[in-house]
Amino acid sequence: MKRTIVETIAAKRDGETLSADEITGFLRSFVDTQVQDYQMTAFLMAVFFRGLDDAETVALTEAMLHSGTVLDLSSVPGIKVDKHSTGGVGDKVSICLAPLVAACGVPVPMVSGRGLGHTGGTLDKLEAIPGFRTDLSIGDFARIVKECGTCMIGQTAEIAPADKRIYALRDVTATVESIPLIVASILSKKLAEGIDGLVLDVKVGKGAFMKDEAKARALAERLVSVGTRAGKHVVAVLTRMDAPLGRAIGNANETREALEVLHGKGPKDLVDCTLVLGAEMLVLGKQATDTEDAMKKMRAAIESGAAIRTMEKMVAAQSGDASVVANPEKLAVAKTVLEVKAPRSGFVTGIDALTLGLTGVAMGAGRTRADQKVDPAVGIEIDRKPGEAVKSGDVVARLFLHGANEDLVKRAESAFSYGDAAPKEEPLVVGRITA
Amino acid sequence: MKRTIVETIAAKRDGETLSADEITGFLRSFVDTQVQDYQMTAFLMAVFFRGLDDAETVALTEAMLHSGTVLDLSSVPGIKVDKHSTGGVGDKVSICLAPLVAACGVPVPMVSGRGLGHTGGTLDKLEAIPGFRTDLSIGDFARIVKECGTCMIGQTAEIAPADKRIYALRDVTATVESIPLIVASILSKKLAEGIDGLVLDVKVGKGAFMKDEAKARALAERLVSVGTRAGKHVVAVLTRMDAPLGRAIGNANETREALEVLHGKGPKDLVDCTLVLGAEMLVLGKQATDTEDAMKKMRAAIESGAAIRTMEKMVAAQSGDASVVANPEKLAVAKTVLEVKAPRSGFVTGIDALTLGLTGVAMGAGRTRADQKVDPAVGIEIDRKPGEAVKSGDVVARLFLHGANEDLVKRAESAFSYGDAAPKEEPLVVGRITA
Repeated sequence: MKRTIVETIAAKRDGETLSADEITGFLRSFVDTQVQDYQMTAFLMAVFFRGLDDAETVALTEAMLHSGTVLDLSSVPGIKVDKHSTGGVGDKVSICLAPLVAACGVPVPMVSGRGLGHTGGTLDKLEAIPGFRTDLSIGDFARIVKECGTCMIGQTAEIAPADKRIYALRDVTATVESIPLIVASILSKKLAEGIDGLVLDVKVGKGAFMKDEAKARALAERLVSVGTRAGKHVVAVLTRMDAPLGRAIGNANETREALEVLHGKGPKDLVDCTLVLGAEMLVLGKQATDTEDAMKKMRAAIESGAAIRTMEKMVAAQSGDASVVANPEKLAVAKTVLEVKAPRSGFVTGIDALTLGLTGVAMGAGRTRADQKVDPAVGIEIDRKPGEAVKSGDVVARLFLHGANEDLVKRAESAFSYGDAAPKEEPLVVGRITA
Repeated sequence: MKRTIVETIAAKRDGETLSADEITGFLRSFVDTQVQDYQMTAFLMAVFFRGLDDAETVALTEAMLHSGTVLDLSSVPGIKVDKHSTGGVGDKVSICLAPLVAACGVPVPMVSGRGLGHTGGTLDKLEAIPGFRTDLSIGDFARIVKECGTCMIGQTAEIAPADKRIYALRDVTATVESIPLIVASILSKKLAEGIDGLVLDVKVGKGAFMKDEAKARALAERLVSVGTRAGKHVVAVLTRMDAPLGRAIGNANETREALEVLHGKGPKDLVDCTLVLGAEMLVLGKQATDTEDAMKKMRAAIESGAAIRTMEKMVAAQSGDASVVANPEKLAVAKTVLEVKAPRSGFVTGIDALTLGLTGVAMGAGRTRADQKVDPAVGIEIDRKPGEAVKSGDVVARLFLHGANEDLVKRAESAFSYGDAAPKEEPLVVGRITA
């Protein structure tokens, strides 16, 4: 006998495993507004406590996926591969990674998000490029992926709308931190892109959503197993994020830093992270036989200018001013510069990513509510990263904004910690999970 | 630092104990519609898993109570005592209990509910009395309690409106079966009546909401401890309910059976249950020194006609036709009578209360949705109760309805089970819990 809505919630509440049909039916009823928001949130809280197994998570993912349009990129030749990161402060990897991988022959269709709270969003950063549009139609998206090798847009109303509604509910009901719900949310959006493969960057550490390695590993494993059951080639890389990634936090300045990577420059941690993830994508996309081969090809694409040219083509196709790609210094910078100084000599031993991220938000680089606008020109530049030596009074960071604000300087100062010795250097890659 | 709405949900989700202020604030924000329904249901599901301790439950109860009007019955002399039953099929005890106890000198202000699903509601049963009104104002309610010793009305919009909204949400989100939520719901309504004492009839057995004695006892204990902390004199009696209570299931026929008790007649189990609960009320209300004294006084009130006269006064005060009290046979009865017969000789060993209750609902005596009307004239009369001997073909029950319906007869038949020997007689009272 078919379960009613309440019986379905009760079954999950009592720890039963729901059939794929039950999950699909429940989700469809939510889309049809037969399942009310207040029933969905009770169900989500029950899932928080009871979990979903792989089969249930696949069913939820696919039901969310099919609540909207699933792109057909079969007209684009090659194995389409995307990357998703669980995010962190200063994570602008997508902006350099997508054109770099595309330049090496792997098409990268990428649907990204906006910033909320202390983490920034790829769309906000890209929109610092004058004219750049991320609100393209699905038709234009497919065309640009075909013509340029990559395209970066936002989650349109057509892509996994059920995920959008469910995420909004989770955000206000303390049901965000559930691994199967995180997995279904990530994968439903990514699977809608028409990809064949997906590389997941699961951040772990003080600056990441997942502070704990065991939890990050559990998330990575579920992402890989569910994504694989959903018929995709999936690899997850666990990367360490204790401090912000790179030296820029903001929007225009983060895009500038990502463009530097395409120019063969950029901070080492950002470059390393981009290459590690790119190598996985090239191998998945069968444009490299192994990591070493992939590294060689990516370095060649940077040296030859192929990566820059791919970025220029994509920016132009998305109505942006492509001249900024060759000249990143053209991107907006706020005029007032406030210096954050080291109060002692020694070494920077840590930078609290959350504190610095929230300082950026307070400066206008991020938002605390989804309906707020961000200011592309404001941002933070980190002059000394953990492990670097300082003398008392040295500038460790600069805030770029539209007027003096000593409170913000104090806040940024508090993000830095110092010691007598450099902290032990931790490897970037903590783990790698494959199907 | 004050917790936000989401942080409050998260704290409960993570098993923290909330302060009384936090519970009160959350509930007030719900009343003010700052806490949305979808946040309340996530919170309720978190409570389902994590529970609430006594202090939290008291805070929730009092916040729900103070979401509406709390009656002031200080103008009514004496210790006001009410009874609440967790309910079951055929439970019409309130209808005879309130006037009986009031006739013995204990004022009984009673706010009752309507039937939903297989259990009936006191209001539906009372409304079978022509003209009887249960939608009185709070002012009329207080006046009638003072004049007649008792008055029975429905939960008005003024009484614990937050409970009404929360119950409606629990009903559709699988969060009904949570002891602290049940306790807060029951007590918030009862405390609003302006009572000094409360006797709780917690039913346990196959025919009750709580099938399991340990769970019923846990509920009874929480009701007593929370009610006591809220400043009331509270006693709970655990009574067995395997089969329907009494012989009548319906509305007019249940009222008729309750009136029979006031006439010194009525089935033994119904009489016993009424007297057991009444004795507790008389002792709480200081109109009897002990159970024996209370029993004597109640029997005297029945024999002298005082109980009947109290009922007549109350019915008249509530605009009902008081002549039915002396002549219960005047109450409506549907014309078609369908007989349910024993398929074998032996003993009735059990009557499934749920099955028979749902048969009554299907006949129109109950409702499956809150907006449905009930038909007072239809109902079921049980001719053979568990333990009674039958010969094959004997009538064990009769359905009173408005036309033949063999399906209903089959359904009622399936509620009866038979054996070669009478089942062991179980005592009515399973336990008694005091502060």
